[in-house]
Amino acid sequence: MRSFNRINSIRPYFESGLKSSITSASKVLAAYQMSTESTAPVETAVPAKVRAPKAPAAPQFTLKTPKGTKDWADKDMTIRSAIFETITKVFKRHGGVTIDTPVFELREILSGKYGEDSKLIYNLEDQGGELTSLRYDLTVPFARFVAMNGIQNIKRYHIAKVYRRDQPAMTKGRMREFYQCDFDIAGSYENMVADSEILSIAAEGLTALGIEDFTIKVNHRKILDGIFQHCGVKEQDVRKVSSAVDKLDKAPWSEVKKEMVVEKGQPEEVADRIGEYVLIKGTISDVINKLKADSALSSNASAAQGIADMETALPYLEAFGVTKHISFDLSLARGLDYYTGLIYEAVTAASAPPEPSSKEAQSSNANKKSKKAKKLDDDDDNSENVGVGSILAGGRYDNLVGMFAGTSKKNASIPCVGVSFGVERLFSLIKARPGLYDNARSTSTQVFLMAFGGGPTWTGFLNERLSVAKLLWDGGVEAEFMYKTKPKTPKQFEAAEKSGCPFAVILGQEEYPKGIVKVKELGMGSDADQGTDVPLEQLVDFVKAKIAARNNGIDSALQLLRLDN
Amino acid sequence: MRSFNRINSIRPYFESGLKSSITSASKVLAAYQMSTESTAPVETAVPAKVRAPKAPAAPQFTLKTPKGTKDWADKDMTIRSAIFETITKVFKRHGGVTIDTPVFELREILSGKYGEDSKLIYNLEDQGGELTSLRYDLTVPFARFVAMNGIQNIKRYHIAKVYRRDQPAMTKGRMREFYQCDFDIAGSYENMVADSEILSIAAEGLTALGIEDFTIKVNHRKILDGIFQHCGVKEQDVRKVSSAVDKLDKAPWSEVKKEMVVEKGQPEEVADRIGEYVLIKGTISDVINKLKADSALSSNASAAQGIADMETALPYLEAFGVTKHISFDLSLARGLDYYTGLIYEAVTAASAPPEPSSKEAQSSNANKKSKKAKKLDDDDDNSENVGVGSILAGGRYDNLVGMFAGTSKKNASIPCVGVSFGVERLFSLIKARPGLYDNARSTSTQVFLMAFGGGPTWTGFLNERLSVAKLLWDGGVEAEFMYKTKPKTPKQFEAAEKSGCPFAVILGQEEYPKGIVKVKELGMGSDADQGTDVPLEQLVDFVKAKIAARNNGIDSALQLLRLDN
Repeated sequence: MRSFNRINSIRPYFESGLKSSITSASKVLAAYQMSTESTAPVETAVPAKVRAPKAPAAPQFTLKTPKGTKDWADKDMTIRSAIFETITKVFKRHGGVTIDTPVFELREILSGKYGEDSKLIYNLEDQGGELTSLRYDLTVPFARFVAMNGIQNIKRYHIAKVYRRDQPAMTKGRMREFYQCDFDIAGSYENMVADSEILSIAAEGLTALGIEDFTIKVNHRKILDGIFQHCGVKEQDVRKVSSAVDKLDKAPWSEVKKEMVVEKGQPEEVADRIGEYVLIKGTISDVINKLKADSALSSNASAAQGIADMETALPYLEAFGVTKHISFDLSLARGLDYYTGLIYEAVTAASAPPEPSSKEAQSSNANKKSKKAKKLDDDDDNSENVGVGSILAGGRYDNLVGMFAGTSKKNASIPCVGVSFGVERLFSLIKARPGLYDNARSTSTQVFLMAFGGGPTWTGFLNERLSVAKLLWDGGVEAEFMYKTKPKTPKQFEAAEKSGCPFAVILGQEEYPKGIVKVKELGMGSDADQGTDVPLEQLVDFVKAKIAARNNGIDSALQLLRLDN
Repeated sequence: MRSFNRINSIRPYFESGLKSSITSASKVLAAYQMSTESTAPVETAVPAKVRAPKAPAAPQFTLKTPKGTKDWADKDMTIRSAIFETITKVFKRHGGVTIDTPVFELREILSGKYGEDSKLIYNLEDQGGELTSLRYDLTVPFARFVAMNGIQNIKRYHIAKVYRRDQPAMTKGRMREFYQCDFDIAGSYENMVADSEILSIAAEGLTALGIEDFTIKVNHRKILDGIFQHCGVKEQDVRKVSSAVDKLDKAPWSEVKKEMVVEKGQPEEVADRIGEYVLIKGTISDVINKLKADSALSSNASAAQGIADMETALPYLEAFGVTKHISFDLSLARGLDYYTGLIYEAVTAASAPPEPSSKEAQSSNANKKSKKAKKLDDDDDNSENVGVGSILAGGRYDNLVGMFAGTSKKNASIPCVGVSFGVERLFSLIKARPGLYDNARSTSTQVFLMAFGGGPTWTGFLNERLSVAKLLWDGGVEAEFMYKTKPKTPKQFEAAEKSGCPFAVILGQEEYPKGIVKVKELGMGSDADQGTDVPLEQLVDFVKAKIAARNNGIDSALQLLRLDN
């Protein structure tokens, strides 16, 4: 009876009853009858009186989803699915395989991987057995998977939910439960080929989503390390200096320099030397040439290695045709852990932070709130001020798998490079396209079946509609109809319009008995299609040809996302 | 910097560092540097010494997924995806919309819904804020969604993971994290139309998965209620008698009767009267006729209502062409809560319980275990003895939404009917098909790019392979190549074979500079395709035509699942 329980769980009481008959019937049954009484539904089957004498009180709690989570439905769901489908196609094109890891991991797997942010990890209650936590990202589970299975190389993609007990900001798309959308290449390969393919995947993914005006800012961790060493930053100051540098995308050099000197305690001459480097950006070859011309920097081992990597990558990136999107930007710092080589993030003009006006509105709003609420809003404001809103990001991380595998294992060190699409932000960008939301449909129904007739002998053709529906379903055509014996004509058009079906198939009182139905294109206003009479046996082919012609051979996901082109 | 963190989480330390610069820099940084030191990877970037002086110890815990969970990967993932894709197509054909609810719900939402099985619910730790639990099924979240949004009618499907802290039995597919795959129709409609469409969806789904030899056993809760009343079963005994009846699919009447009389304390004459009814099964019309001929039973209000429902459904089921799969079986009892009307489950010969031999093996194995382990195995054995393995199940539940909405709301009572495909069991059945697993591929790569050449001037054509790959990717063709400058020819064939690519595109040292590549079908043994020379500008079209011809217009999911036909 396990499977029974598994596949339809809305009658678990029954299972209890069944188990009881095998083990300790009376005890279980007693508990079961008690619990049943207290949860009996309002309207039970006949005879209601005997089976559930008490009507339950309305629930004593607010019906809502947990904080920071939401239901996805309707057109939002359609748009998000189209995004996932489009990105998945790109991932598959590059030979990606997908994996599905559990939504929770042993707590030990996650510990020590997220620094300060570990406090944002959701723990599962200790109900006996192992201590587990909800995954915080897809990267650590991926590294665990690679290490655990002794995998030497894999291209894997994973689109799934992750969990962070963060202060949610729903309007900005910052949720406690949200999707990540990752592609990673693990394995020891010819230097920079996989890195270049990852950048190509990034560009192809954005292009496929209909985003054209993007820039991929790239940098190399070893070059940054070399610059900081060369400029005289002490090792213990590298991280804080680096985080100041990373703000150059939203603050002028004068401010960043001030932060370095005043807040971060760097000598002014060190800051000035850094400034000479991190303001450099341009095409890959221009920046390489500049750096190589600097004999002092290029004699630094770390910088030299990074420059050589970028030089190696250049022809690969040219072969992939992605250099036009790339800006080699020495101010891009990204994280300072895990990453060991290429780092990058993509931005687009449309993903810029909100206008000052909306920020002001929010800030004045925040003033009305309690001190505690204000504090949280401050946190929000920070998140708003930093970052121009990258729409994807990634880089090379050669040591994470090794953290799991230890030093003894065969795959002690499996180098990895990956990309993560920022689906929440991409969703907002795409949803905002003019016309797109209006054109999205929550169903993909193509045909609405109607019956027209009248008079005393009119049956409403319900059975007839069902059998034509079946004909269409079996032919692979999405079809709906009103669950009503004798629906009125205007009601049927109303329902068809609400469904967004492009076509109606009409069963006329006179025509249907002769084996003829009418196929009519809907939603054409005054130029309404008068419809075509089609013999029933040709209906599936006729409708499929109509649908194909209407879609012009383009699948619905692509059609939706490329609306602007 | 939120989005930054969101879309690529493998450098959270950095974010900490960044936050610190705004709030309390030194404190956070100190903690951050400490945590970094203790988790520093083995091989850091140059200069390793300065950045991560200590190599970490190998992890002190076993690398595994939590109990009752597993990673899905490789061909299993392909097969499961094909199942989901196929069922989704059927759901969409019926106008289904999909929703995505959070993986955890407020604990109050779930409480009082699962009776005894509530102990199997995973709770999240109380980390401040609301108390939440992982969802136990998709039905209660669906009812919450409908009630919360005041939805009057919806056809929704949802394919997602649910969680049960159950004793896992991995080999039997009983996991703590597993998928459910549900379609439900909510709304007040013409009686029995939605119920009939649900049965049609069940039949179409199984057929689409290549399962032909299935039977859908149907019954009606009101008929069962009527039978028990009519036979003199006391109200308080209905559940236990019903659970005995439900065993008739695996035990003879004599045993079930004995259980009723001896264990369940029913008078022998009551058991005999029940036996006259519950052994009845046959076509819907046969069983209706038998029941209607029984004037005593058919004068029972509950039974009469159920019989009338089935009579109403019959022409709809005939119109849908599903009566051939249906057995009206009065021994089907299913749960006794929630369900208020039609109930059903589908079985197939191939989903029968394991052979006795394997049970014996397991039982002797269990003897070697500790007492505690033995007890758990007993539990396993129970689950093995009960149920012949239904592959889908469902029914009508008219009161669940009302439990959330209370009596005051507009949608206090939204009747629902649904189907749940048993994907774990369907997966096992489908995976076991001869040849299917061998034919499954974990990637969908179509083309493996190779370069052939030699001699002192031979470069290996890496850049050239990259640009041809890009050509194919942009054309929508899945393509891979070896990440190696000068790969040896046998190595390339080996890699191509491993990838399962049906085609090779070969860049010859002489031919490629003339704009010609060779397209060769792979895996043809001694009848090897000698290949066709194709000009580069025609490559995409040529390859796409080759792929289309090979697939015969059938998509890969369908191809995989219908292998037996």
